Parts: sequence; C-alpha cells; structure tokens
Amino acid sequence: MDLTKIQDPSFLKTMDNRQLRALAQQIREFLIDQVSRTGGHLSSNLGVVELTIALHKVFDSPRDKIFFDVGHQCYTHKILTGRAACFPTLRQYEGLSGFQKRAESEHDVWEAGHSSTSLSAALGMAIARDLNKESYHIVPVIGDGALGGGMALEALNQIGSEQRNIIIIFNDNNMSISENVGVLTQNFAKLRSSKPYNALKHDLKTALNRNNVGQAVLSGLQNIKDAIKSGVIDTGVFGVFGLEYLGPVDGHDFKNLIQCLEVAKTHQGPVVVHVLTKKGKGYSYCEQDKEGRWHGVSAFDKETGEILTRPAPGHLSWSAIISENLIRLAEKNKDILAVTPAMMTGSKLERFFALYPDRAFDCGIAEEHAATFCAGLAISGKRPFISLYSSFLQRCYDQINHDICRMDLPVVIGIDRAGLVGEDGDTHHGVFDITLLRSLPNLILSQPKDALEARALMETAFAQRHPFVIRYPRGTARYDEKAEAEPIAVGSWSCYNDVPESKVWVMTYGPDVDRVLSKILTNSLPVSLINARFFKPLDEALLRRLSREGKPVVIYETDMLAGGLASAVLEWCADHDCPIPVKRIGIGDHYVPQGSMNRIRKREGIDILSCFEEIQKYCK
Amino acid sequence: MDLTKIQDPSFLKTMDNRQLRALAQQIREFLIDQVSRTGGHLSSNLGVVELTIALHKVFDSPRDKIFFDVGHQCYTHKILTGRAACFPTLRQYEGLSGFQKRAESEHDVWEAGHSSTSLSAALGMAIARDLNKESYHIVPVIGDGALGGGMALEALNQIGSEQRNIIIIFNDNNMSISENVGVLTQNFAKLRSSKPYNALKHDLKTALNRNNVGQAVLSGLQNIKDAIKSGVIDTGVFGVFGLEYLGPVDGHDFKNLIQCLEVAKTHQGPVVVHVLTKKGKGYSYCEQDKEGRWHGVSAFDKETGEILTRPAPGHLSWSAIISENLIRLAEKNKDILAVTPAMMTGSKLERFFALYPDRAFDCGIAEEHAATFCAGLAISGKRPFISLYSSFLQRCYDQINHDICRMDLPVVIGIDRAGLVGEDGDTHHGVFDITLLRSLPNLILSQPKDALEARALMETAFAQRHPFVIRYPRGTARYDEKAEAEPIAVGSWSCYNDVPESKVWVMTYGPDVDRVLSKILTNSLPVSLINARFFKPLDEALLRRLSREGKPVVIYETDMLAGGLASAVLEWCADHDCPIPVKRIGIGDHYVPQGSMNRIRKREGIDILSCFEEIQKYCK
Repeated sequence: MDLTKIQDPSFLKTMDNRQLRALAQQIREFLIDQVSRTGGHLSSNLGVVELTIALHKVFDSPRDKIFFDVGHQCYTHKILTGRAACFPTLRQYEGLSGFQKRAESEHDVWEAGHSSTSLSAALGMAIARDLNKESYHIVPVIGDGALGGGMALEALNQIGSEQRNIIIIFNDNNMSISENVGVLTQNFAKLRSSKPYNALKHDLKTALNRNNVGQAVLSGLQNIKDAIKSGVIDTGVFGVFGLEYLGPVDGHDFKNLIQCLEVAKTHQGPVVVHVLTKKGKGYSYCEQDKEGRWHGVSAFDKETGEILTRPAPGHLSWSAIISENLIRLAEKNKDILAVTPAMMTGSKLERFFALYPDRAFDCGIAEEHAATFCAGLAISGKRPFISLYSSFLQRCYDQINHDICRMDLPVVIGIDRAGLVGEDGDTHHGVFDITLLRSLPNLILSQPKDALEARALMETAFAQRHPFVIRYPRGTARYDEKAEAEPIAVGSWSCYNDVPESKVWVMTYGPDVDRVLSKILTNSLPVSLINARFFKPLDEALLRRLSREGKPVVIYETDMLAGGLASAVLEWCADHDCPIPVKRIGIGDHYVPQGSMNRIRKREGIDILSCFEEIQKYCK
Repeated sequence: MDLTKIQDPSFLKTMDNRQLRALAQQIREFLIDQVSRTGGHLSSNLGVVELTIALHKVFDSPRDKIFFDVGHQCYTHKILTGRAACFPTLRQYEGLSGFQKRAESEHDVWEAGHSSTSLSAALGMAIARDLNKESYHIVPVIGDGALGGGMALEALNQIGSEQRNIIIIFNDNNMSISENVGVLTQNFAKLRSSKPYNALKHDLKTALNRNNVGQAVLSGLQNIKDAIKSGVIDTGVFGVFGLEYLGPVDGHDFKNLIQCLEVAKTHQGPVVVHVLTKKGKGYSYCEQDKEGRWHGVSAFDKETGEILTRPAPGHLSWSAIISENLIRLAEKNKDILAVTPAMMTGSKLERFFALYPDRAFDCGIAEEHAATFCAGLAISGKRPFISLYSSFLQRCYDQINHDICRMDLPVVIGIDRAGLVGEDGDTHHGVFDITLLRSLPNLILSQPKDALEARALMETAFAQRHPFVIRYPRGTARYDEKAEAEPIAVGSWSCYNDVPESKVWVMTYGPDVDRVLSKILTNSLPVSLINARFFKPLDEALLRRLSREGKPVVIYETDMLAGGLASAVLEWCADHDCPIPVKRIGIGDHYVPQGSMNRIRKREGIDILSCFEEIQKYCK
C-alpha cells in the first residue's frame, strides 16, 4: 500500500495478521530509507513497529489516548496517523517533529522529550476522564530505561493507590539509549524469562481469583498465597506497586500481542502489558548495537551503515574533548571519578569506563540521584565529574542547589549539549542553564571557547574545591591532544583586537568567540572582543575598564536572555555605579523550535551575520 | 544524668537496657521541655529517641556515618553528640540548627532539609569508602514518606545493583508530615504486620540459604522458591530492589532493636532494617496527631498543648488565605482541582480536601510527579491548582519548564513559603523561585501584597489559560472573607503616594509594599511606591514613565538578587534604550542562615529600616 495515502488508523481494523505483517515490513523499510536521508531516531522506532500497529488496531485513537514516553519512538504512530508524506522534512525547520507534537495531529495527545513523564500524565488524564464520567482508554507506552526514572516510580506509587483504568504498555527492550543499569533491570529480566503470556495463563490467574475453590485454596494457605500467584504470574516490581500484570508478550508477534491488548482493554484498574521488543529490529546494524550509536543518527548509507557526516580532520566532538581531558587528569589523580545518568555514549565516556571501570558509574536515567550521589562522593573526599546534557540537568536543579552548592562540595559538572541543539527542538535545547545556575552561591560557571581552553578549564576545575561547571555545546572543535594548558584564574576574561581605534566591544562566549574574531579580522572591523569564559564570577576589573572607557558593548548570547550573561553585567553595573552601554543579543521569551543550527540561529537573530548587522551600527 | 555533660556517645557502650530506657525517658522529657520553649520539630524527634540511642550504642560515630534523611529528626543525635547545652538556642540566629550541620559537629556527616537525598549520599559515601579500602559503616536513616520520593527510589535501583555495604534504617511511622499516601504505604503496612523480627527468623532464613539441604529444597522447587522465602521473610519492595531485609522490629524496644542492628552490622551488601516507630511517642498531643500539626511547632504550653502564638485577630496564614480563595472559586468552577505533594496541612488544604474529596489529590513527597500530573489534568481540560513550598518547588523545575510551560498548560501554581522562612534556615528559604521561573516562556509570575490582592490574583489566574504562578510568604495577613475582588490586568503594577514632589521611587512586592507605604506616610517622606505584583510580564507603560521622569528607583527585593526583579527591570531598560537609575536591595550571593525573620532580614539588609537608610539618601 501507499503509506503516504494513509489518513488515519481506521484501515487497520479489517486487516488480518498476514496483512499486518506485510504492513510492518513496509513501514520498516520506509523508516530505514527515510531516516537514512534525514537522520533521526532509528533503533527505538524499528523496535516498536508491530507494537504501534497493534495499539492502533486494538484502540481507537484519538478517542483513546495513545502516547509515548520521551516520544522519539513515535514514527510508526506518525505514519499510521496520516503523516508519512511529511517524513522528508523530519526534524527540519517547520518540518515534521521527531517527537509527538500536539500541533501536528489530534492523535498526538501529549508531548515530551525528557524521560519518565508519561505515567504522571496518564494519571492526570485518567482522573480528568473519570471526573467527566467518560470512558476512553489511556495508553502510555514507556520503556524499561524510563521506568527507572524517579518520577515514573513516584507516578506508579499513586497509580497503584488510585486504581484508575490505565493501560501501561511496558516496552521492554532491555536498553535505554545504551544498555540499562540498576537492579530493576534484573527484575525485568526475571519477568522477561518467565513463561510467556498466553490466554491460558491469564485464564488460570482469573480462575484462581474468581473460582470459589481457588479462593479457598488461596486463603487457606495464606503463607504460600504469593507463591502460587507468582508461580502463575510473576508480577515483579509491578505487583509491589499494585498493578495487574499481563505478559511477557512478544512485541513482534501480532497474534499474541493483539490478544493480550484485547484482554488489557477489558481490565478494571491499572494494568501493565509487558511487551518484549528488539531495539533496531529488522536492520542488522541497529540490532547489533549495544552502545546506542544507532539511537539517534545523522544521515547514513543504508546499505553499508556508514554515517555520512564525520567530524572534520583533527576535530573531535565537544563531549569527546572533555572526556579526553578527564582521562588525562584521572591518570594523575586517583580520586577523579566519572558519573553519567545513562549517557555514557552520548557524553563520550566509553573510553573512561573502559580504562577505569571501578571509577566510572552509570546511574541510569536518574539525574537527581546522580547529582546527589556525586555530592556523597565529594563529601567523602572524591573528585567526581558528572556530565549532564543541559536540558536534562534541569531535572537535578534542586540537587545541584541544595546538595552540591549549599554544602559547597567540589563536584565538577560538565554541561553537554549546552545552547541550541538543532533538530531535536524545544524539549532538548540547552538554553536555560546559565540563568538557572547563575544565582547559586559557591558555584563557578564557565564555558571554553575552544578545546585548548576546555583543557585549561578542566585543569582549573580540579585544582580548586568549589562546585565548578563547564558547559560546552553540541558539535565539534579542533583538538590537539598534545597541547598543554595551565589553569585559568577563576573569573578572568580575555580580550581580542583590543585596539584604541575600536568603536565597540562584543562580549560573547563559547565557539562564537572565534567566529566573531574571524569576522573582525577578515573585515578589519573596528571592533574589540571579550571572551566571557566565566558567567560567574564576572571579570570585575575588565568591567570597570569598560565602564571607564564608555564604549558600547554588544553582549551576544546564544541562550535565554532572561537572567543570562548580559543580565549579570547589568546587575554589576547597577550595583557598582559603573554604567556600561549594553546592547543584548540572544534568545527572547519563547521556546525555540527544531531546525538545523544555521536555520534556527538565523531565526533567533543569533547567527554571526545578524549579530554583525547590529555591531556594524556602532562602527560608523 | 546531666544531659548537658555528654561529650560524645561512647558512654552508651557500657549501659544496659534498663539504663538506656531511663536515658530515653530523660531525653524525651528534655525534648518536650526544650521544644515547648523554642519551637521546633517535635513529633518526629520523639519517635526516634530509642532508635537513635541504639544506633549510637551499636555503631561508632563519627567513624561510622550515621545520618538522617531530611534531618529534622536529629535532636537526640545532637544530645548524644554533646550538644544538649545548646538547645536553648535551637533554630535561633547563630544557635543550634534544627537539622544536621557539618559545621556543628564531626558527627554530622551529611546535611539536608529536602527529603529523600540520604540514599544517594550513602551510595556515594560507600563507593568512596570502598575505593579507599576502608571499612566503616554507613547508616542512613530514612522515613517511609521520604522513601516514596523519586530520587530515593532511583538510589535504591543503583544500591541494589552495586551491592555495597550500606545499612539503611527504614524508620517506619506510617506518616510523612501527615498521613502517608500511595501504594508503597500499603506495601509497608503489609511488612509491618508480618511476623516481628527476632533472631530465630533471621537464623531460619540464613539456614535455608546456607544449609545444603535447604538450598536443595529451594532449587528443586523453583516455582515456590519465592513463596518459601516470603513465607519466612516478606521483603516487599525491598526484595524487588535487591536489598536484604531485617525486620520489622519495635523501634522502642532496646533489646530487639540492638540485636537486629548487631545482625545488620555483620551483613555483607546493602541491608534494610525495618524499624517501627511511633511519631510523637510519649507525648499524648503528638501521638494523637494525624494531620501533622505537631510536626513542626512554635512554642507551646507543655501541660495543655496549647500553641502560644496565634494569628492576630482577623488574620489568617497566607496558605489559608490562598486555600479559602481556592474554595470560593472551586464552588463556581467544577473543573478546579487541588493537588499537593504531601503538604495538605502545611498548605492549609484540609478544608478543600474535606469539601471536595474527589477533586483533591495528595501525591506524597513527589513534587516532580505532582507537577506533571497537573499537566496531565490540565491537558484534559481541568484547572489544577498545585501548592508547592518555594524551596521544594526546586525539585520540579524541569516539570514546570518542560511539561507545563512548554505546552503552555493552564496550571495555577501557588508558591507557599516564598522568601525567607526564618528558623528552618538555608535549606528552606524560598528565595530562588523568581530567578528560576522568570526565564520560562508562557509563564505569568505574580505576588500579592495583601489578602485582597491575593483574591484578585486567584480570580485572574483562573480567568486565563496560561501557566500562572502566585507566590506568597510564610506568616499571616489580615483577611476579610467577604471582600470581593476583580481580576487584575496581567502585568499591571500599582502606584502609591504618586506625587510630583517625591524624589525617589521604591519598587517592591508582597507584604513589604504596605510596610514601606506605612513608613512613607507616617514620616511624610517624599517617596513614591510601586507594587510590582507581576515579576513577569513587567508593567512596560509604567517603566517607560519611570525612564521618562528619570527619578532614582530603589528596587527592594527580599529574594536572591541574581536574576530577580531588578534584573528584569535592567534588562528591559537595556533593550528599550530607556535608562532608569536603579539601586538594588536584596539577598546577595550566599546562602542565608537560620534565625528569626527580623534577625535575618536585618542581617541581609532587607529589613524596612535598612531599606530606608538607603532610600533616605535620595530624599535630601
């Protein structure tokens, strides 16, 4: 069939299993082909093709609410709800989102990009439905990685006691982005290996509960009640949380899957359907990937599996630059440890984990625990480095404040993917961390302009004993592994093209420092440049000089303006009666959509060209 | 014995159970007497007298690390570690902290005021210890309420897989501040009612595991293995998380308690000791309290249980004012629901819960889930109101950003205890929320100056459809239940003493508006006043006027200066080329210690007198 002609999922109702299998095969080929061109989330989507088809066959979206935790595994859902034709625009500016988006379709009832929110949302929806005396189904799909996130467990705690009708699809592929960690994983594995779900298993359980004789047997033998129950159906962690459990069921077998979902549909109260899926199913490169390299990919050759974009020669990703520096420092200092919340691959910590397995800790999708765990390490004399994506760091703001900064503990925090991230869009842009962290006492907040300065800041961070943050963007930078760098004085900025004839200062940070400098030098512009490599503390001596000299200062930020670097400068000026004429460039009071970095930087007026249009006004 | 003569807990080693009981009785009387004078946390401390004595008898602090989740139940620990003489200064400025404080004693190895951090800290400490090849015990004490917090469950997930030696004391009183909620509570209740711990029980379990015959029986009968295990020892949620379980044991019975702790001490790997305690034990007013009124108390008459300070006539607490307004609105609008994360009593929502039991939800200590749960309600057309203490709101920053603001959902957030809170100190001051929330798109952020304006803002909040925050402080305000109020234009400020002869503007918010006004009018000062009741959006028309007129503006904040109201004004001025001479008063770059509100406001220079010293400079 022509996938682009699909309007809504109603056509599935009349399809038999053979037809469904053919459809699944066609969707899988479509996904591999499309994502090979645009890039996107691949493995997780290949894993849930049959599951998504089965959900849309059994339930009636949009009346029934089907939604995906995190949401990056919703591609089949998008195809079945009439969006196949949009896939060439996937993750592009004004194109199809890589996540569920309410504005795109009435079938998208919830949005997320951060993990573990779906169960809280489901309970909210269920209570609203019940108060309205409506009767539709609420069907969140959550993976085994996301289920270990604290807020998902908090939600289970209340779902278990509220006992509302919610059908939780537990999509168990034994992976989050890379392999899962934690004891819950072992618990799930035990469930996975238990007798597969079939109608008989459910009937037996039901019979034991409903049948008088069964009841008598059970209540007579109080001590082995749980035994008999668990002999029939091992409910693991779900039993503890008061949830009915159905499964495990093969997530690629339409017959059992649909049968199981039909049973779940009739259940009163919350029920978990444990679906076993294979991440990357049907595409060998993805199936073999344990490290998560095929979790989110850029365009690739679908025959060879070769990724088409590579870092330029001599360049490394910022994550790798930080990790390589961490390894250098860890060689000399045995107290340095590495911590990641399920982002070993994304944060390029694989080599650290391989070199120092007893000094590297993956906490799972659990940013809050991970941050306070670092506080526990630091309070005992260790020097933990934790790498957090900026957007996910938001999850552990309180732990950074209450546990790390309040006790002034020497935790070094690497903020990965700081600033705009491009195609992942509004849920993933890391543009809030400066304003979030700038008001925290004891904290030092920095960003290097290049790999050498990254090395220097890493040296600086471990040479002192306060909470120290180094943020760095998505993307790559030129890296010379042999270059040596000394610690930098905390709070010191650096100046470029600092010449008397310059008419305006530009103050910026990160890789834009060199971009601006190049523009200045290439065009011989009368512009001086400040690398504000510390957001906190500020370089007060330099600020005094700026005030004395009175030249205009364009503060060029690539993050939220509210509470950002310019805000810090303006506060300082007001407090010290040292006025500086400041012009702010940065991201205004709105969420930034998806798109290529070039496209959205331009949209936000924070690309180099837009910035220089502003700067040129002062050069006349 | 003279409690004030205690230097350290070593004297306990030679005491027999009879002597320990006498000591416990003496400590209990001491606590009731002291807290009746100073106020403080009472019920939770009375519950753990024997437990704390037993811990210090069995373990060797400070070599062994004993610490308390949240930490407000550490009073007996303070007495046993040489701080009884300091109790007259409890919670006062420069006096004894109501929480564990590292600066106070080497026996205080961890600090907290927020819930559920102790297990993450314990794992960090355990790993540091093991890397250092040391062998002391790590003994976090965590309550049943705190154990339902997401980050505690995240920690259990890693503790279960790491299998380090940690002795988790599960202090189960079936209460957090008020009665617990959630299905875990039921799980704990099941454990509570199981056969009490005694040596035999442990021996039997050990025998079954160690004995060859026992092993053979177990492995031969795979299907009922869990049954036999759970017949002997029901491990509930702890078994799921891979923890050894000892208990339940009576937390007021030294004999069993000490025996059980001694067994735990010999255990390899993480073990939970389930201790049953009675909150408020030994003081009838506390024992009978289910609502948490005796959780934290101000000074009281220890004979009659009468609280000595009461709101002035005609006054209500700010929490009650907001809740009463919520009830008025909820009468007219059936879609309005109330949500609290375990703060029904503190947020004065009891009457709402009683009037509308099916429209009121206690999510337990689970701010993150609670916030996203509200997003789920709102996305389904409901109008949830969630009340969050400012300091605890930090826990759900990401959910407010990613789930509520990003989807622009009409959740009304009441921020209780906003600003300084006084005696609870640095962990509880609610001084970060303005800077935290001001950078969030779609959000409206407000604070009323009095009860009538609170009513108006509540009307405003529910008359519009964006995320709307109303913050209000600890303390009371005059309340007239009959007064009517209309919605206020969003972003509008109001002016007082707006006369041509005034020489300076003061811009402030909350109850300080009327305090400043009273000072101006009483002293006929040439000062005009702005009630900046919206932090976001700003009143741009008024700002333009201020810039035009050019008078100095003293912005008087009672929260963190970094990123606060003045920062917002300065940003606006820079962007609109409308300079305003701004002088900032507020809290600088440090954590604020405990003390009476008057004392710490003065210390921070944000009391009315200090403020007017500054203002007077402009009046000459």
